[in-house]
Amino acid sequence: MLPDPQAGGQTGSLEHIALLRPLSAEQRAAVARQCRWRRFASDEQIIDHWADTQDVAFIVEGRVRVLSHSAGGREISFTDIDAGELVGEMSALDGRPRSASVVALGEGALLAFLPARPFRDLVSGHPELGLAVMLRLCDKLRGATDRIMDLSTLGANNRVHAELLRLARRGRRQGAAAIIAPIPVHSDIAARVSTTRETVARVMSDLTRDGLLQRRADALVVCDLQELERLVAEVRGAP
Amino acid sequence: MLPDPQAGGQTGSLEHIALLRPLSAEQRAAVARQCRWRRFASDEQIIDHWADTQDVAFIVEGRVRVLSHSAGGREISFTDIDAGELVGEMSALDGRPRSASVVALGEGALLAFLPARPFRDLVSGHPELGLAVMLRLCDKLRGATDRIMDLSTLGANNRVHAELLRLARRGRRQGAAAIIAPIPVHSDIAARVSTTRETVARVMSDLTRDGLLQRRADALVVCDLQELERLVAEVRGAP
Repeated sequence: MLPDPQAGGQTGSLEHIALLRPLSAEQRAAVARQCRWRRFASDEQIIDHWADTQDVAFIVEGRVRVLSHSAGGREISFTDIDAGELVGEMSALDGRPRSASVVALGEGALLAFLPARPFRDLVSGHPELGLAVMLRLCDKLRGATDRIMDLSTLGANNRVHAELLRLARRGRRQGAAAIIAPIPVHSDIAARVSTTRETVARVMSDLTRDGLLQRRADALVVCDLQELERLVAEVRGAP
Repeated sequence: MLPDPQAGGQTGSLEHIALLRPLSAEQRAAVARQCRWRRFASDEQIIDHWADTQDVAFIVEGRVRVLSHSAGGREISFTDIDAGELVGEMSALDGRPRSASVVALGEGALLAFLPARPFRDLVSGHPELGLAVMLRLCDKLRGATDRIMDLSTLGANNRVHAELLRLARRGRRQGAAAIIAPIPVHSDIAARVSTTRETVARVMSDLTRDGLLQRRADALVVCDLQELERLVAEVRGAP
């Protein structure tokens, strides 16, 4: 258990932050001392889309979600980020407003906030860190490009199929099947593919009726992963 | 006029490429010698989405469009990039497949292709170049995030309004009006906001009927820029 800085004013360790791995333990400790440490409860807001902040946040414990809301209040989620990663690097780099909000998931999260200036010094002072930040941004941009294509060319039904396929590919295989555990929440899928919970429920019940999906007590089973892959490839039209 | 390398095997100059400005003239000339130079006709494909290439392309003359196609053949366009900029840096950095295609616009384009390895050496060897690449990626990612929000929360009508607003803001002001010149092609707007030409035509004719838009011989006039801004802000719901 890392010390809670709010309790003792101490700092924790950044040794499990992937980006900082090329640094020496001493350099990492120096970065840690420049951070403001804070623990967040589940669902608590970590970065406010509309606040004028620019620090980068290292996720030391827990998991966070990057999201935004429509004018009508519907949640659009972008990505979930695990411990060991970071969030908020865009405003730290370019000084522009936050592009989205960030909230803590699950059991909450411990974050270390590094101000923009030392973060920029870090990535320009260490070429391997700079390159790693570029790769992170490329990865996010590729994900965003794929999502724009899906939103532009697929119906909501097919986007739910595509999201189930994404979850299934990260799941455990069992013969032709893939196991998604824990069972994803309908509203999470809806926020990921920009549709309503009702649409997600309808599509999943259709897939269950067709024998492609099965709900167990603790997991969702895609009974024929190849068939789901075929279904998605057909509408996406990638070669 | 730069020498056409296909004719004489010579190289042109990279002095107007913004990213390379921090380099000395000598360093820039060394980069130019590592490039493969090629001139493209209007509409000619520069980067093939599905080809296994990884070089970055400096746009020395002309203008290019980054785009992709749906399974049904509909064009989805991402961004237009002017001379002085570059394109294709993602695959050069991460070695993964191209995320889209690139074609030459207008009168064609002259490009200098630098292989992935020297490009990566360049951005890791010069911190200010590395930071500039990060800012470019941030800018693209912010644009993609905005587009995901628009696609997720706005109807096609409102997305056409938002695109006209984007074009109007880059145009010349004339009192309350903004001048968009040359007149944008309906199919270009459609590809930018992921809808059909027919929808663009209908929305523009509605705006004309309502007195908000006026078509001149050589320009499109947004008669009341503030009113268009209000219209878009209302549906986007940003504070």
